[in-house]
Amino acid sequence: MATDDPRDDELALAEAPDTVVRADDREAEAKIPDDRIDDERMDEENTLKPEFVAAVRNALDAEDGEAVYDLVEPLHPADIADLLELFEREERHRLAASITDLMSSEVVAELNDYVRDDMMESLAPEAVASIAEQLETDDAVQLIEDLDSSDQRAILAELDAEDRIAIERALSYPEETAGRLMSRDFVAVPEHMTVGALIDYLREDGDLTDDFWEIFVVDHTHHPVGTCQLSWILRTPRDIPLSDVMKRDQTLIPVMLDQEEVALMFQKYGLISAAVVDEDDRLVGQMTVDDIVHIIAEEAGEDVMLLSGAGEGDINEPLRDAYKSRVRWLVANLGTALVASFIIAAFGAAIEELVALAVLMPIVASIGGNAGTQTMAVTVRAIAMNQLTRSNTGRILLREMKVAFLNGATIAVLVGLATGAIFTPTLGIVIAAAMIINVVTAGLAGVLVPVIFDRLRQDPAVASSVFVTMITDSMGFFAFLGLAVSAGLAG
Amino acid sequence: MATDDPRDDELALAEAPDTVVRADDREAEAKIPDDRIDDERMDEENTLKPEFVAAVRNALDAEDGEAVYDLVEPLHPADIADLLELFEREERHRLAASITDLMSSEVVAELNDYVRDDMMESLAPEAVASIAEQLETDDAVQLIEDLDSSDQRAILAELDAEDRIAIERALSYPEETAGRLMSRDFVAVPEHMTVGALIDYLREDGDLTDDFWEIFVVDHTHHPVGTCQLSWILRTPRDIPLSDVMKRDQTLIPVMLDQEEVALMFQKYGLISAAVVDEDDRLVGQMTVDDIVHIIAEEAGEDVMLLSGAGEGDINEPLRDAYKSRVRWLVANLGTALVASFIIAAFGAAIEELVALAVLMPIVASIGGNAGTQTMAVTVRAIAMNQLTRSNTGRILLREMKVAFLNGATIAVLVGLATGAIFTPTLGIVIAAAMIINVVTAGLAGVLVPVIFDRLRQDPAVASSVFVTMITDSMGFFAFLGLAVSAGLAG
Repeated sequence: MATDDPRDDELALAEAPDTVVRADDREAEAKIPDDRIDDERMDEENTLKPEFVAAVRNALDAEDGEAVYDLVEPLHPADIADLLELFEREERHRLAASITDLMSSEVVAELNDYVRDDMMESLAPEAVASIAEQLETDDAVQLIEDLDSSDQRAILAELDAEDRIAIERALSYPEETAGRLMSRDFVAVPEHMTVGALIDYLREDGDLTDDFWEIFVVDHTHHPVGTCQLSWILRTPRDIPLSDVMKRDQTLIPVMLDQEEVALMFQKYGLISAAVVDEDDRLVGQMTVDDIVHIIAEEAGEDVMLLSGAGEGDINEPLRDAYKSRVRWLVANLGTALVASFIIAAFGAAIEELVALAVLMPIVASIGGNAGTQTMAVTVRAIAMNQLTRSNTGRILLREMKVAFLNGATIAVLVGLATGAIFTPTLGIVIAAAMIINVVTAGLAGVLVPVIFDRLRQDPAVASSVFVTMITDSMGFFAFLGLAVSAGLAG
Repeated sequence: MATDDPRDDELALAEAPDTVVRADDREAEAKIPDDRIDDERMDEENTLKPEFVAAVRNALDAEDGEAVYDLVEPLHPADIADLLELFEREERHRLAASITDLMSSEVVAELNDYVRDDMMESLAPEAVASIAEQLETDDAVQLIEDLDSSDQRAILAELDAEDRIAIERALSYPEETAGRLMSRDFVAVPEHMTVGALIDYLREDGDLTDDFWEIFVVDHTHHPVGTCQLSWILRTPRDIPLSDVMKRDQTLIPVMLDQEEVALMFQKYGLISAAVVDEDDRLVGQMTVDDIVHIIAEEAGEDVMLLSGAGEGDINEPLRDAYKSRVRWLVANLGTALVASFIIAAFGAAIEELVALAVLMPIVASIGGNAGTQTMAVTVRAIAMNQLTRSNTGRILLREMKVAFLNGATIAVLVGLATGAIFTPTLGIVIAAAMIINVVTAGLAGVLVPVIFDRLRQDPAVASSVFVTMITDSMGFFAFLGLAVSAGLAG
């Protein structure tokens, strides 16, 4: 539905309709039920079919804006976001321009961070501001938090005072804290209110959010004293006071708590929503589990990326950022590889005398590296999930030592016998002994390195790998070559 | 509170009180608000303080059951579960015996799978059955699904008919499908019902679950036609029919859908609960997000473990299982290390002539391995999150090739200059060229290996690592030694 508006060339998101659903217009917007998992467009994994994506691409290339619109229109906002992510930058901007009035705030909220930032940067501040106005505060904050501070100021200046203040207050908290992420729209009522009075209040106050799953009960100083699930309210007679319905035992989230800890609390206590409190324990916001699921997935996925040195590891990350974070890691690993090379160089004469040492030495280092990675992955994950604490570190270390010894012994027997048969029995014994030493060292390093980083309040996923690899590589070469020389095989 | 009951020696969970909270007794059970993050027992990461755990351990060792009980009693059930997990097996059983009537169904539901199975195996079937009766069906299924089938039958025989049928029906679906995991307690009402009639029904029917966040609206054949958030109901006048309040555009979960796909749907569409439908699209259950958060964390964490070959990677996994899954991986890696050794052996004469080759060759292999792991981690995660599909594989491959080339070139310059300075310029050029070849190969393998496994409908996280490592190791040694020989440096 291209128009002559020049902004269409960029991305005219600004006209996106208000998509906040109100009880009275919910019926009007209802479409033919499409019962998600829609065979025409989605495959069995609920991703967009390649044929469908190709059809959109063809229509785009043919500059047939109407065909593009008709194809995309039946999609859920989350699937429109997926479609935008599948395209490369230039196609994506053309697609967005063709479906201007489908680019709702819900689509924007569902976009991958990198893709959203890229699209926002190409927009005028007033266009971004009018999208931000339609979003919940927490989504609006996400929209602008990664932009330059001059862009941020320009956008904030376009917002009306109420929205601006809410966003500025959120931005005043550090990134990834509850204060930054929480929603400031919630329902809080006094303790003496009855169920009936609450229902009347909810029916009458048109300004309230629809996005609440629990009611927070507060005292006159705005301290939370209890929480009511909506189902409890619906199941209780009108004349009962909320103080008889609410649960007093609540989980309160301090405003400065890191998102990782918030996510663990939601998981641990099975929360749907939770009150966020300030330094004086006054209710200032709520967090709901639908925001938390993204954090859980992000934090858990982050560990894989950090352990393998892949930075953010998002396929939408700009090339330059991906290069920078990964090359830094490779350079660090170059350092550890050099340590291993120095050890090999020290045994140069032995290798010259018995070239079999050069043939076999990578086996010892490589298996040690793998064993170390296994233990490290288990340890890092257990630390991240709060399963490994000071109270059980000793027990877990002992357990990992036992596994390492069993693994080391098994591999030692296999490698030792084969080496003994192919080369000499002495070389078989040497490689078997080196293997046990290295796998047990790997187990020890795999537990201790992440635990030490954690005690030093460093993220164990970030740097453990470099150290564990250095230890297992060096120990592998040193144990094998050193034992070979001691056994009089060479050198 | 030790008694003379001999079952106390095992675990007398059976007497655990019914912990389902009803509106009328919620007040009665309310304790002094303990406002989670409780300074006396919990540290700032919301894990149990080592001093507190030590105090419990001391009381246990002193056989002072009353002191143990008094220490544990103020804890939330999820924290009691954590406490049990921190102890080793024998202590854990003694602890459980000391706090019999704190061992509620909530504690059991929160326990780590391995710990729960271990504790259940030590109990008589009738004791497990009486715990199962207090649990929601989905939690009860989890309690018994991993037990031997003879134990399962013995426990099912102890249950009353209604619970037994519900559990048997759940067990008839494959593990990790929606049918196995869903709750059979939900609220479904006809379309013509008004808001007022719904509220009256909810107030009057005492058998309903409290665990619902949305109401499902069904037609006369029990097909879902819409969903109502409870907040919408509370905000709508009594005389409005539900058909005017409900959202018709719903996300329905097929009963056979895998839990990983279910979790992705909850994330993608920001769901709090969703209707589960059978083959004929009839409503048969619901899934709520509090169960999904565990699945999201599990699935995301699983990828780290699988990529590093650490099996389930749970610190509570029995030693034998941990050994079995990890040694299998190490043996597979032994195979790949052998391939690398054969390549080195083929260049034995060259190494004998120029021992610098043996010193430097692990650097090429190691950096290639790291680069491959980075790309592979990014690819595996993108596949798991449904971000990488047939529609953008080509684009992502191109992107990764660019990153790989930049990384390879950077490392090649560093290593080439250093080698040129320390050894000879020709050796510097050889190692630089080998490095670029290996890092680019690593990037190619890091994308293609997981993508091919995914196309073959294999979990890319399981086996990609072995293949990628084999490719980067072999290519590293082959390119470096081969180029050295071609350059006339040796051999």
